[in-house]
Amino acid sequence: MFFASDNSGPVHPKVLQALTEANSGYAMGYGADSQMDALRDTLRALFEAPEAAVHLVATGTAANALALATLTQPYQTVFCSDVAHIHEDECNAPEFYSGGAKLTLVPCGDKMTPQALRTAIAGEETRGVHGPQRGPVAISQVTERGSVYSLDELQALTTVAKEFDLPVHLDGARFANAMVALDCTPAEMSWKAGVDAVSFGGTKNGCMGVEAVIFFDPKHAWEFELRRKRGAHLFSKNRYLAAQMLGYLKDGLWLENAAKANANSAYLAEGLRKAGAEFLHRPDANMIFASLPRAAHQRAFAAGASYHLWDGPLEGPEDEMVGARFVCDWSISTTQIDQFLALL
Amino acid sequence: MFFASDNSGPVHPKVLQALTEANSGYAMGYGADSQMDALRDTLRALFEAPEAAVHLVATGTAANALALATLTQPYQTVFCSDVAHIHEDECNAPEFYSGGAKLTLVPCGDKMTPQALRTAIAGEETRGVHGPQRGPVAISQVTERGSVYSLDELQALTTVAKEFDLPVHLDGARFANAMVALDCTPAEMSWKAGVDAVSFGGTKNGCMGVEAVIFFDPKHAWEFELRRKRGAHLFSKNRYLAAQMLGYLKDGLWLENAAKANANSAYLAEGLRKAGAEFLHRPDANMIFASLPRAAHQRAFAAGASYHLWDGPLEGPEDEMVGARFVCDWSISTTQIDQFLALL
Amino acid sequence: MFFASDNSGPVHPKVLQALTEANSGYAMGYGADSQMDALRDTLRALFEAPEAAVHLVATGTAANALALATLTQPYQTVFCSDVAHIHEDECNAPEFYSGGAKLTLVPCGDKMTPQALRTAIAGEETRGVHGPQRGPVAISQVTERGSVYSLDELQALTTVAKEFDLPVHLDGARFANAMVALDCTPAEMSWKAGVDAVSFGGTKNGCMGVEAVIFFDPKHAWEFELRRKRGAHLFSKNRYLAAQMLGYLKDGLWLENAAKANANSAYLAEGLRKAGAEFLHRPDANMIFASLPRAAHQRAFAAGASYHLWDGPLEGPEDEMVGARFVCDWSISTTQIDQFLALL
Amino acid sequence: MFFASDNSGPVHPKVLQALTEANSGYAMGYGADSQMDALRDTLRALFEAPEAAVHLVATGTAANALALATLTQPYQTVFCSDVAHIHEDECNAPEFYSGGAKLTLVPCGDKMTPQALRTAIAGEETRGVHGPQRGPVAISQVTERGSVYSLDELQALTTVAKEFDLPVHLDGARFANAMVALDCTPAEMSWKAGVDAVSFGGTKNGCMGVEAVIFFDPKHAWEFELRRKRGAHLFSKNRYLAAQMLGYLKDGLWLENAAKANANSAYLAEGLRKAGAEFLHRPDANMIFASLPRAAHQRAFAAGASYHLWDGPLEGPEDEMVGARFVCDWSISTTQIDQFLALL
Repeated sequence: MFFASDNSGPVHPKVLQALTEANSGYAMGYGADSQMDALRDTLRALFEAPEAAVHLVATGTAANALALATLTQPYQTVFCSDVAHIHEDECNAPEFYSGGAKLTLVPCGDKMTPQALRTAIAGEETRGVHGPQRGPVAISQVTERGSVYSLDELQALTTVAKEFDLPVHLDGARFANAMVALDCTPAEMSWKAGVDAVSFGGTKNGCMGVEAVIFFDPKHAWEFELRRKRGAHLFSKNRYLAAQMLGYLKDGLWLENAAKANANSAYLAEGLRKAGAEFLHRPDANMIFASLPRAAHQRAFAAGASYHLWDGPLEGPEDEMVGARFVCDWSISTTQIDQFLALL
Repeated sequence: MFFASDNSGPVHPKVLQALTEANSGYAMGYGADSQMDALRDTLRALFEAPEAAVHLVATGTAANALALATLTQPYQTVFCSDVAHIHEDECNAPEFYSGGAKLTLVPCGDKMTPQALRTAIAGEETRGVHGPQRGPVAISQVTERGSVYSLDELQALTTVAKEFDLPVHLDGARFANAMVALDCTPAEMSWKAGVDAVSFGGTKNGCMGVEAVIFFDPKHAWEFELRRKRGAHLFSKNRYLAAQMLGYLKDGLWLENAAKANANSAYLAEGLRKAGAEFLHRPDANMIFASLPRAAHQRAFAAGASYHLWDGPLEGPEDEMVGARFVCDWSISTTQIDQFLALL
Repeated sequence: MFFASDNSGPVHPKVLQALTEANSGYAMGYGADSQMDALRDTLRALFEAPEAAVHLVATGTAANALALATLTQPYQTVFCSDVAHIHEDECNAPEFYSGGAKLTLVPCGDKMTPQALRTAIAGEETRGVHGPQRGPVAISQVTERGSVYSLDELQALTTVAKEFDLPVHLDGARFANAMVALDCTPAEMSWKAGVDAVSFGGTKNGCMGVEAVIFFDPKHAWEFELRRKRGAHLFSKNRYLAAQMLGYLKDGLWLENAAKANANSAYLAEGLRKAGAEFLHRPDANMIFASLPRAAHQRAFAAGASYHLWDGPLEGPEDEMVGARFVCDWSISTTQIDQFLALL
Repeated sequence: MFFASDNSGPVHPKVLQALTEANSGYAMGYGADSQMDALRDTLRALFEAPEAAVHLVATGTAANALALATLTQPYQTVFCSDVAHIHEDECNAPEFYSGGAKLTLVPCGDKMTPQALRTAIAGEETRGVHGPQRGPVAISQVTERGSVYSLDELQALTTVAKEFDLPVHLDGARFANAMVALDCTPAEMSWKAGVDAVSFGGTKNGCMGVEAVIFFDPKHAWEFELRRKRGAHLFSKNRYLAAQMLGYLKDGLWLENAAKANANSAYLAEGLRKAGAEFLHRPDANMIFASLPRAAHQRAFAAGASYHLWDGPLEGPEDEMVGARFVCDWSISTTQIDQFLALL
């Protein structure tokens, strides 16, 4: 009954097996290994982007902060949702890596709307040298509240960015979950929708710790390499990052894992609905924000369930509704879900 | 015949096994896992430092840059050897993480001497607010040229630092190799010798990618945590870092690996000596700097050997001496070494 | 008819005279001059703070950014109004000087309320190492919308800060104007009200370019000196900064100038009111935010008046109300104001 | 007898007069004033560079750090003399403004030689992503030891920089003194000699506090503006910076001041020579490095002379030679010099 995060579950056995298979003989360090060559080819093919720059790091925050820093000058501001991971959960990493750029929060609470984005961008217009200059637009897909932008919604946001000639970064920590939800191709959810750079997550969907940063315009490649090294995110034994992601991409494991996580999340959501839960919105992928009476949470926690309470403490009036976040990773079983639902 | 680096070899099977064993069930992310608890206890016991702060990162540069940033103000300067890894091989990571501090190079070419260190520190004295202020002393053990400071030498350097009330950081990317060379305890080579913080390497000695940062004064712990997160070096699936290092420390594997690497290096050095090589200095641990006639290098490279030429190109007069760096990791076999020596 | 800013007018003749009088003979550079000694004494006496650290810089942004950087760690966030100068008009200087700290905007539109401040501070509580840590509270007095906090209001804000053990910075670019409006002492509007550091402005009230940064706890002095030098804000010919401010403080010139500016602003506001203007709020000091029919602006601009339109362009329907900002400095004459009002 | 620095003397009366004349009526802030327009034209004409970007700041460190930051990426290194002001006397300002770039010291002790520069640049070549990338070459003219590069020497250095496609910055804190020494034009000592950006000093030669930064390629203008504002170096009352420099340039005052300073320095040097002084090298401009018996210094200091002892304390054996730095600014009189020489 572990719904705390999709980084709490184990590594998928096939990813571990890929690591094991990579573990023989010698390899040049720092990315000059054959696994990396194979992975680069694989990701370029998957994204239908034969020129794309492909880089690996080990954490999602590194992927986001380094990608944004490559696209941002220190006197600019990044436009993002007011609940974006880069704002709330990275302890100023984007500010650090960009040399002190600002984040301008688009007030949405979850998905950005084109209108709100345009208003925010236009609002940074009038101060000349006094205010920060306009920088990239940063979009999370899946969002931090479990929503998935449709391809049209995504296109609408990038269209606003392009009106102002701003680059677009996609935080795809849950890229696979979103793709499965939309039933689309990687290219459709990225450059075909106007995205310039992607943090392509592996860690939350069965890997041990690997994220790819992909720039569709390869002109950013060398600067990114230098920023990654300077940020201490270049792995000497890079082959083990590449091997993880190769195992993850092989034979569609990544989509299989995401489909399972999404399906289990839908199953859990349906159970919660029947148990009287109220939803922040319809969960689109593998993350659910729902309220239950406090007594239900108390029973669940007492029985060992693990997840995050969202808007209130565990102690208090029993019948008060308390919001919670439930995340299903690839490894959650319906048995666990049934066991949990039985508690409610 | 792979002597390019001790990060070119495979992960030790027991470390991989530890990863596999850690890969079941759920664990809280970001360091709140039981593997981390066990590792913290293990390292504190090893270092006879029950209060020490213990943190994990995945790269040596992250360990160094974050440890130094915690000890350095942006208007200070770090004193280090003029061939220190933090100066030559981290692409300005210490400057980045410290917010723009400077490195003051102690001119030594390898080991710092107490005299040279004192001169360098004293030299930053006279400019008041105009020059950088004195910051930490950074020592590499094993050095970047393959030397090992004796405990007395180490103590002499830290004594100079303490005269000026400066903290001392030890870059122990090859901590185990140095310890084996000195036949001493971790405490003797760190806090008992006056060291305040250690980058305790795992990656070069059989791990996949893990380094511990240890502060003997735990007051630095929370600041380090924040700097690590801000630097994007906090792993969500931290258990896999902890598991690697637990496997590495278990049953003395780390010392066994280092002893094997050092012994093989000594064996290689002896062979090189017999083949007429000239040494930069007596190799102390697992890294050799030696010159051979260019023709010998040409034969070796033609036969597939891999290592770094140090002070000249592969092409040129055949009988000219050309320096090279040879590194033995735990996985090098004497068979490989013999095969290589036969080429010379 | 120059109401664009209180930095558009000339330097007060007495300040220029002080510069001229300081211009003889030799003086040690970088603050070791006798003018600086005299100024330090003067400001300490004025603020009834015999131990206070007193430093000079030449711009308000430097005063704010350096003062805040001294009080802020790079992994923290500064709490400020959503229209604060440090957020809107300093092109990321606070982020730059702090090494990438964040600003958390308290949604108020002008004056912060204790409730809104407490909510904002409390909101940064729950994310542990993931979110930025709580840093200083930054208050502007006069505010960027021309309001003045009463002493009680100020105390209420600093009380919230102290609940969370956070330091308080006061952006006093218009310190004198606020003091005159409140008819209080410098101490009452600073440390007695719970303020830890003040940017004490001179430039907008008759000086050429000088601001004092005052820390009531002198422990910050040396760090500030180093940050100022590192920021390139230490003047070699510091005596000319000190002389300006000595001239400014002598015989109450600073209060005289502020009183005149406030009085002229009140006179202008009354005239605007009679001409049908609508006010954002009652102007408290020397800055007015008021709306007039567009036709009135068009007449005024055609006649050479200078001020900033706030929320709309000069072209458009003639009878639409368009907001504008009017600032009176010490040099504005009632003749100019009458001339301007006659146009409306 | 004030030879401590050329920032210890008074402002030239004509510069003060220019300030006074600028002090009437209203002017738009932040550089949109007519004085700035006039100054831009004047400097472009002087430098025979009709397209050049011209910006003002108030300190030499700001000019250097901002100019270099505009030319440097944070993962690069700046090549400079090992006694450069940017290295020794700016408390890490270049590192701060560049976001953590490094300075690579060319070992010269004073003037860089083309050979030493080439060796230093070539030395940063071999480490790929691991070491810092090559950035600008920074030259001081007059040097920090009082030398002046000939135009041929300057050209030889910039030729090396261009071989590696690196931009060149000239720290011209004493630009006028060097020009007078070389009897050349501003263009000959800058862009015609291969210099891309100049810090054109005013403060040390009769101004109150103003330096121009000039880029011969105007593409850098807007970035510099933003970096200047972000660094808090944009003056609201910019007209008083512009007025100073206009007064300084008017009717050749700047060259007259420099000629007088250089002549007085030559006169002082001749007197020192007769008194038995030993020189570090022949002084080229207005700065002398010379050794005298300690007893002579003791007499001079006792009589109220002011200058910096260079390589030893005031107390010690009386006949030991102790080095000192003597600087003559425009205001030093031969009477003072004679009075001083009489003491020796």
